[in-house]
Amino acid sequence: MASVDVGVGLLGYGTVGSAVSRMLAARREEIERATGHRLTVVRALVRDAAREREFPPGEGVLTEDFASLRDDARIDVVAEVMGGIEPAGRHVRELLRAGKPVVSANKQLVARDGAELFAIASAAGVQLRFEASVCAAVPVVKVLRESLVAENVHRILGIVNGTTNFVLSRMERGGTYAEALAEAQSLGFAEADPTEDVSGADAAAKIAILATVAFGSRVLLADVLHRGIDSIEPAHVAAAAAFGMTVKLIAIATLAEGGVDVRVQPALVEHAHPLAGVEGSSNAVVLQGDAIREVTLGGPGAGGIETASAVVADLVSVVGTSGTGFLQNDACWRELPRLDPAAWRSRFYVHLDVADQPGVLGQAATTFAEHGVSIARLVQHLEDGNAALDLVLHDAKSGSVEAAVDELAASPEVFGRPLVAPVIAA
Amino acid sequence: MASVDVGVGLLGYGTVGSAVSRMLAARREEIERATGHRLTVVRALVRDAAREREFPPGEGVLTEDFASLRDDARIDVVAEVMGGIEPAGRHVRELLRAGKPVVSANKQLVARDGAELFAIASAAGVQLRFEASVCAAVPVVKVLRESLVAENVHRILGIVNGTTNFVLSRMERGGTYAEALAEAQSLGFAEADPTEDVSGADAAAKIAILATVAFGSRVLLADVLHRGIDSIEPAHVAAAAAFGMTVKLIAIATLAEGGVDVRVQPALVEHAHPLAGVEGSSNAVVLQGDAIREVTLGGPGAGGIETASAVVADLVSVVGTSGTGFLQNDACWRELPRLDPAAWRSRFYVHLDVADQPGVLGQAATTFAEHGVSIARLVQHLEDGNAALDLVLHDAKSGSVEAAVDELAASPEVFGRPLVAPVIAA
Repeated sequence: MASVDVGVGLLGYGTVGSAVSRMLAARREEIERATGHRLTVVRALVRDAAREREFPPGEGVLTEDFASLRDDARIDVVAEVMGGIEPAGRHVRELLRAGKPVVSANKQLVARDGAELFAIASAAGVQLRFEASVCAAVPVVKVLRESLVAENVHRILGIVNGTTNFVLSRMERGGTYAEALAEAQSLGFAEADPTEDVSGADAAAKIAILATVAFGSRVLLADVLHRGIDSIEPAHVAAAAAFGMTVKLIAIATLAEGGVDVRVQPALVEHAHPLAGVEGSSNAVVLQGDAIREVTLGGPGAGGIETASAVVADLVSVVGTSGTGFLQNDACWRELPRLDPAAWRSRFYVHLDVADQPGVLGQAATTFAEHGVSIARLVQHLEDGNAALDLVLHDAKSGSVEAAVDELAASPEVFGRPLVAPVIAA
Repeated sequence: MASVDVGVGLLGYGTVGSAVSRMLAARREEIERATGHRLTVVRALVRDAAREREFPPGEGVLTEDFASLRDDARIDVVAEVMGGIEPAGRHVRELLRAGKPVVSANKQLVARDGAELFAIASAAGVQLRFEASVCAAVPVVKVLRESLVAENVHRILGIVNGTTNFVLSRMERGGTYAEALAEAQSLGFAEADPTEDVSGADAAAKIAILATVAFGSRVLLADVLHRGIDSIEPAHVAAAAAFGMTVKLIAIATLAEGGVDVRVQPALVEHAHPLAGVEGSSNAVVLQGDAIREVTLGGPGAGGIETASAVVADLVSVVGTSGTGFLQNDACWRELPRLDPAAWRSRFYVHLDVADQPGVLGQAATTFAEHGVSIARLVQHLEDGNAALDLVLHDAKSGSVEAAVDELAASPEVFGRPLVAPVIAA
């Protein structure tokens, strides 16, 4: 079969865009051999075409004028690697409507407007791919949409934020949250303003995208209950270790009883679970389905070159499936209700700082019992007239556990805000 | 885009074939939605069409006559799920030559005749996919060929045999190899004749397939140096634990200096390595490349439904890429030489049973030094007048380590055959 020339347009030519351009040039032969297509960047939209660049594209490729890219008949597929909501979103909509397939690395855009963009792509009969928008080079979107196409994936568990995983891994080796965060910042694993990461918001956007793909129902960022890691203290990390577990920020999407629950929160993960061993800034995702039981994917979840690798894979997949109708139907084909978050079931870990007085432990046990929650394991630590209770509860409704803890937190013998975290069993 | 009817032919209707048939029926809507294609099994070749079956296909689907399947114009793609070299191989060749894309779950066939089959498929302009032939539902072939298409994958590390991993996991909890194997057999994780698994031959066939795909050069089963797990003793498992490692049967494919080295052997894996936590009959593969550094995939490596899930994914991928030239070029496009196995470099673990006499340890140290091999860690155990030496060596050539160990093994103070195993660092 003779090779076909494919023109690629880039929206953006920053770290990721230039890496895509470099990779397409460097791996041109391999790509042509595998796909029968010669991919060449013919236009790249930038804000300042005159700026000096480390890996400049060919003569006349850079443009500051979106229309000249949109109307360039040589362009068969466009990679959006500029980031941000606007003008990226506007450009992507226009391109899809004009019948150009789009590959996007834009987590914010896909998490916010994904369902609308899928619908536009579907109506135009073109593909929208977005592997790079979640976990960079870890091919979780492709595996979900293609390898598990015949699979009823009903649960996703993931470590999808490298910054928080680095901080929590660091805390395992001792030190406070503040110390671990400062180290992450000095090593470049956390930004000067780390809010987006440590609050769980970044992970929430990623699991919203994955849940949307896996369940075929739009999951918005606002649908994702998320808690960050800033409440994690050395005492929690130590208690987890004593229970044979480790503290991780876990994103969980569940499809059950015809509804969806998507959440991000610190969780205690048993050591034998595949996510327990995910160290430092790595990402990993566990996909649970009927036939496959459980498939795990792990790797670098961030980085310019890693993201570019996913963008190039998507470009290749688009040209490899063009004209076949593959993945061109609206990915959000149903509207599943959001489950009542209080009805979500799990085992839970609870940490309570309490007064070292007779009866406090009994009060805690009674309160949980009154809410129908039974205690599986309990450890009491005594120190300076105060005590800490670490409890692992049997499977219970989130709402029952929270209600019991709220009641306990209101008692004068309980200090500060107790920590409630799900337990992820191996 | 209107949906298109796609006729599927099955070679074989046993455990995997009937599971494919059931899955295509049960997930018909999901598949049509994702691909724009309605897949229906229209013919299935079996030895005895009259036999009662748990999930019978439609009226008139079963046939004992290959020609009636080959010549059925309704068939667009065929899944080979009969296993064995012949007649499966003959049928697959005929189908490819007749222009029918084929999906194969047949590890033996692909490992033995893969390169020839790729060439036939390429000449006929059709696809040959074989995800299910390696690690069942773990989508390692798709990820290698599609997600990492622009990636220079230069190393693959894998636990690709569930039986041996179960036995070794069991030995970690105590007991001899024979006891662990007997338990695996009683639980159905090992066959009555476990030779194919415990010798490393099964793993060798799988890594031969993966190396061929990753490196684009034909790797034959005979090119894979393989050692089994039957030489693993409780003392090795205990020594590994003391070094913070675990014993695993590891398949390793390396592309270096323009040549290929592919091997399967017991190895000591550091606890922090992603493969160390792979328990029981699970499989996991680590793919190392330039941009992505390392992507890990894990999941069930065997089972009828799990295998069927991979076959269905391949069928869907074939229809989703038909006519685009995608993956239709010969996957074996170059001939890389096999590296001299003795030149392969690694850190190594060596276990020596020796006489408890002064000077034996010194003799061992001197022998390694004479071969240019330096010792990183050494533990000596004394028991009943005998001693055992557990050594971890610094990075060295396999040939140098083997030569030193051969020399030591010839000494009257060294008993039995020493164990040499690579160390996989985290």
